[in-house]
Amino acid sequence: LISKLPNVGTTIFTTMSQLAAQTGALNLSQGFPDFDGPDALREAVGRHVMAGHNQYAPMTGLPALRDQVAIKVASLYGRQVSADSEVTITPGATQAIFCAIHAVIRPGDEVIVFDPCYDSYEPAMELAGGLCIHQPLSLPDFTIDWQKLADAITPRTRMIVLNTPHNPSGALIDLADLDRLASLIRDKDIYLLSDEVYEHLVFDGHEHASVLRHEELYQRAFVVSSFGKTYHVTGWKTGYVVAPAALSTELRKVHQYVSFTGVTPLQWALAEFMAAHPEHLSELAGFYQAKRDLFCDLLAESRFSFTRAAGTYFQLADYSEIRPELDDVAMSQWLTREHGVATIPISVFYQTPPAESRLVRFCFAKREETLRQAAERLCAI
Amino acid sequence: LISKLPNVGTTIFTTMSQLAAQTGALNLSQGFPDFDGPDALREAVGRHVMAGHNQYAPMTGLPALRDQVAIKVASLYGRQVSADSEVTITPGATQAIFCAIHAVIRPGDEVIVFDPCYDSYEPAMELAGGLCIHQPLSLPDFTIDWQKLADAITPRTRMIVLNTPHNPSGALIDLADLDRLASLIRDKDIYLLSDEVYEHLVFDGHEHASVLRHEELYQRAFVVSSFGKTYHVTGWKTGYVVAPAALSTELRKVHQYVSFTGVTPLQWALAEFMAAHPEHLSELAGFYQAKRDLFCDLLAESRFSFTRAAGTYFQLADYSEIRPELDDVAMSQWLTREHGVATIPISVFYQTPPAESRLVRFCFAKREETLRQAAERLCAI
Ligand SMILES: CSCCC(=O)C(=O)O
Ligand SMILES: CSCCC(=O)C(=O)O
Repeated sequence: LISKLPNVGTTIFTTMSQLAAQTGALNLSQGFPDFDGPDALREAVGRHVMAGHNQYAPMTGLPALRDQVAIKVASLYGRQVSADSEVTITPGATQAIFCAIHAVIRPGDEVIVFDPCYDSYEPAMELAGGLCIHQPLSLPDFTIDWQKLADAITPRTRMIVLNTPHNPSGALIDLADLDRLASLIRDKDIYLLSDEVYEHLVFDGHEHASVLRHEELYQRAFVVSSFGKTYHVTGWKTGYVVAPAALSTELRKVHQYVSFTGVTPLQWALAEFMAAHPEHLSELAGFYQAKRDLFCDLLAESRFSFTRAAGTYFQLADYSEIRPELDDVAMSQWLTREHGVATIPISVFYQTPPAESRLVRFCFAKREETLRQAAERLCAI
Repeated sequence: LISKLPNVGTTIFTTMSQLAAQTGALNLSQGFPDFDGPDALREAVGRHVMAGHNQYAPMTGLPALRDQVAIKVASLYGRQVSADSEVTITPGATQAIFCAIHAVIRPGDEVIVFDPCYDSYEPAMELAGGLCIHQPLSLPDFTIDWQKLADAITPRTRMIVLNTPHNPSGALIDLADLDRLASLIRDKDIYLLSDEVYEHLVFDGHEHASVLRHEELYQRAFVVSSFGKTYHVTGWKTGYVVAPAALSTELRKVHQYVSFTGVTPLQWALAEFMAAHPEHLSELAGFYQAKRDLFCDLLAESRFSFTRAAGTYFQLADYSEIRPELDDVAMSQWLTREHGVATIPISVFYQTPPAESRLVRFCFAKREETLRQAAERLCAI
């Protein structure tokens, strides 16, 4: 048995969460909240399960939930999308990404990803027979080098993967970046996969540069988001894709045979909650910004150095004043085992990690108490 | 945009369920119950959602649920499997099938499927670059022609897809068939995908010939099942794969990047219910056999002819005494529109449908009242 994915091991998220559990460390590694989704949302699940909403949803997702996505897209990004032909509910954003890739990537196609990047892009691409071309973001601010991107585009380039707000750095791109990208790929047969799962987690008054705001780019884009991240229920594994009708048609052909459809009662609960609580979305950035600030204010007393994340629920921190001799994997293990705080090393998000990088990622989607305890331990180092 | 799956349209299940909804017909087409899962199971979902079981489950599935699968496999099929290394929970059986295929099939590999077969095998295979070799089951009893199977095997054959109990025919294979298969593929580099989602729906005292009972075959098999079908909750999209550790490792590499994991609170509820209600499994065959018999006893008064299904919740019926000039697609539409009973034409499960076939498929996973009403309408034709 020769593996089709010889380079794939256990994801760092599983590894670090397991190590955290074994050692009893505070788990600031894998990205998930240690608090719960809204009561009204959770209470709705039990109600819909008891009301008999337990058989197959339509393949494209519950109409009421697709309607809510269309309403949100119109109100936040000023785009009218058809809930019928442009919105597809998927069993999680990871699957949305997988299906978008498999909808258009053929053997030999090249796909440009910006390192550091989420670890599912490359295996999904490999299974489709595509080749990932890794372009490092420029340090220290994790920005796109437009000249290098232009140079990386070849006639075989079929897709570019954007991710804003960016995991693991928390960096944002802006609307001018989208214009630059549009002018680079104009007249080329290149699709865009826009991973916007942290779309609502944008701080300090910045605005989210959704590809949904950009007419020209949207016409060739799959825009992915996640109910799990937005509603604090990562274990519900429910996400969605917005894409023009022609792309949605191809995406759905894949989705139909990867999973057929998502979980029915969760879709009912989400649709109901979104209709009743639109304020959840507008309050989310403030909610997480307060957590970021709490954590960063406390961490300022430590020997870690950092620039506050502009988005996501992740905070990078440089440890070169603490243990410069350790690479970030060793550092993450040391922090977990010796100081009771589990983190994610960011080198695992790179094809070729920068040699000098001394950064670990903390997830601050945690209760105030957890953040205070973690900061206390980190300040004691 | 040139489609990667040019032959894929909307599945017949969506088409017929939509037509049923539009026309107000009784929906005996797509396979799902019109009754609900057990109260205790559904009640458990609300409880676990409120208890805070809403973040990511482990990638391989909740340990308690994997344990229950291992216990069931030991008690029903006499096989000790490791919950840790041989059981993987997936977001639905369709996804289990997709991941098993992508775990081992490479471009150019051949896969033998028996027609009529479930419509997801071929697109999943195409996306992996494999080629489906369609071998028709022998009519009228939908049996495997072993000589033809032997002839169809080539050095490129990498997988055979079994499905017992068989959708759409309800036919079963037996343990002697498994022995025949084993002797055919012994010493060949061929995997087995065993779609056993109707494993508990086996009637008239027959026993389910699970590949899990067969030591030699199991060593090269992915065995797929479905909690949705077993617990009357198809909309929960939760299934599993049992496979030897080496195959499970490859399967999980794919699963990790197709979806990462399944829905947490549903897994808690299923694990709890399985532990508390093992009798659900042993009562299931009787429960569905009573439905089959009710429906068939009533249908005996009609001009349809049929042999009772030996398994699954589907009943085929021959309509050649009613409208022999209609093909089965036209017949299904006519039954839906003119007589208020939606069915599935079985030609769609074939690469080359037999010209003379005049069979439609009824799903009898319905309340007594639905089955009586449907039979009344069918008897009036
Ligand atoms: C699917 S587990 C990974 C969660 C996550 O997105 C992250 O920690 O980066
Ligand atoms: C995923 S919809 C199809 C349900 C089913 O298995 C069938 O009707 O055959």
